[in-house]
Amino acid sequence: MCKSCDYTIHAKSHHFGWNNANAPVLRVEPGATIAFECNDSSAGQITATSTLDDLVALDFGRINPVTGPVYIEGAKPGDALKVKIEAFEPSGFGWTANIPGFGLLADQFKEPALRLWSYDKDTLAPAAWSPFGAVPLKPFAGTIGVAPAEPGLHSIVPPRRVGGNLDIRDLAAGCELYLPIEVEGALFSVGDTHAAQGDGEICGTAIESPMNVALTFELVKDANLSFPRFTTPGPVTRHLDAKGYEVTTGIGTDLFEGARAAVSQMVDLVAKRTGMSPVEAYMLASVCGDLRISEIVDQPNWVVSFYFPRVVIE
Amino acid sequence: MCKSCDYTIHAKSHHFGWNNANAPVLRVEPGATIAFECNDSSAGQITATSTLDDLVALDFGRINPVTGPVYIEGAKPGDALKVKIEAFEPSGFGWTANIPGFGLLADQFKEPALRLWSYDKDTLAPAAWSPFGAVPLKPFAGTIGVAPAEPGLHSIVPPRRVGGNLDIRDLAAGCELYLPIEVEGALFSVGDTHAAQGDGEICGTAIESPMNVALTFELVKDANLSFPRFTTPGPVTRHLDAKGYEVTTGIGTDLFEGARAAVSQMVDLVAKRTGMSPVEAYMLASVCGDLRISEIVDQPNWVVSFYFPRVVIE
Repeated sequence: MCKSCDYTIHAKSHHFGWNNANAPVLRVEPGATIAFECNDSSAGQITATSTLDDLVALDFGRINPVTGPVYIEGAKPGDALKVKIEAFEPSGFGWTANIPGFGLLADQFKEPALRLWSYDKDTLAPAAWSPFGAVPLKPFAGTIGVAPAEPGLHSIVPPRRVGGNLDIRDLAAGCELYLPIEVEGALFSVGDTHAAQGDGEICGTAIESPMNVALTFELVKDANLSFPRFTTPGPVTRHLDAKGYEVTTGIGTDLFEGARAAVSQMVDLVAKRTGMSPVEAYMLASVCGDLRISEIVDQPNWVVSFYFPRVVIE
Repeated sequence: MCKSCDYTIHAKSHHFGWNNANAPVLRVEPGATIAFECNDSSAGQITATSTLDDLVALDFGRINPVTGPVYIEGAKPGDALKVKIEAFEPSGFGWTANIPGFGLLADQFKEPALRLWSYDKDTLAPAAWSPFGAVPLKPFAGTIGVAPAEPGLHSIVPPRRVGGNLDIRDLAAGCELYLPIEVEGALFSVGDTHAAQGDGEICGTAIESPMNVALTFELVKDANLSFPRFTTPGPVTRHLDAKGYEVTTGIGTDLFEGARAAVSQMVDLVAKRTGMSPVEAYMLASVCGDLRISEIVDQPNWVVSFYFPRVVIE
């Protein structure tokens, strides 16, 4: 896929969960550029011909495979791994689901739901959510991280200070990500590629889409980061902000409940305005809408806002 | 100030706190456009010649005056007040402060600090934060709301479901805001005008700036809103996103602590990179940087990110 890459790691070289005892599939010097083939977050259990039955039958023991790990020579605990996100090669297929028990409004949406996507992998034109509109795309890797110091197998689901399932939609091409290293060699892995997602990933899934990713690695010695940080090369929302936003708010003493209130009202608003079902509005909002903290200082009440880009449905 | 306005309410017609027993200073029919003169959030206690002594001596009994209230004929509990935000006429003077005991990192920044701003009220060119850079401006009203149903005097500081001290920086010119009405006549007031602020208002103050505001009122009968919502006419971050962002993250089970971690790391990063003091970086981040919830579904850990626009210091 990647003419400027030094190595390719194929999708069969994946693992489930984080474990610093996993043997590296590749050892590289800093400066190397690697092409990673990434499975989707279902490890291929959901395909372009899947039905709701496949979603219900999902084997959660095979969720969120990551390709790797890569051992970076010279990496020591306390250093940072600088990951230059060079490019994505999307597949053109994706899926979004409401998985019972998972998602910000799991108590309101208890039934499984599945939406399959087909998008133009070359132009990345907005992907149809027929008959209601189309979603601008911005590919990124939902899970990107290094192995934790703590021995044993750790779930891939929660992100950690070493990264992992960050689901930060702005980790797109051109970004430079800095990850805290906790073990020798760093043991980097990547996967869970998404064609689009809003801030929050509110229903629990994005446009889940297998994809190839090209990354370049450098070390920053003794960086002693607390958490991951990154730099974006330019604007991050211009692909979807042209027509402005519908915004709902949640106000109260708890940010999590504020987020739930804001999202719940947006689901109602989008469903009523377009005629789509509430669960469709919930999944659509997950792939394009953003959770923001508008204020966090006016004691004791904070304001969480949910921004839905009007371009998607207008 | 406003040739298309039907009425002007002068800044002397202000009140402190919310109380549905406050007598209206004006009664209007739906459709009216009103010019409001707004004091700054110190009610004029901080001026262009103020020093730290004035900040320390601040009388908190006179904080956050709002101009009003306005009685809208026909407004009933359960209706929504639609507020079209027509225009701002900024004053050119502003201030930002770290007020001990107030702000997201109050435990780290215990000493008072004050920064005075002078900006071009006609061009709204980015305001100098000498010698480090300049902050793009986008005027809005921090406090905008209607009287709560509950009798008595209520602090102006916390926002409520009827609005109030929302501090939503995207409530700028062109927006349409919908507020839940709880009392007859709605009893609308506005103030706490800001020349610029980031999402979160992390240090507790924005660029606090006296300003005139022109607003048009309509009623939406029986809207039965849970919380305020609004529509923006176009993009909301293009004034500051051209050069991209530096982003820090906080990862864990609590969104509030995640926000604190992300902001604390950004203060360190900006201070180290520019040479400004940490409290200056904290105040600067408050007027231009944004708190976002990157993911809120990967149990049990959520990711809060703080976005600092590079254009401000590059």
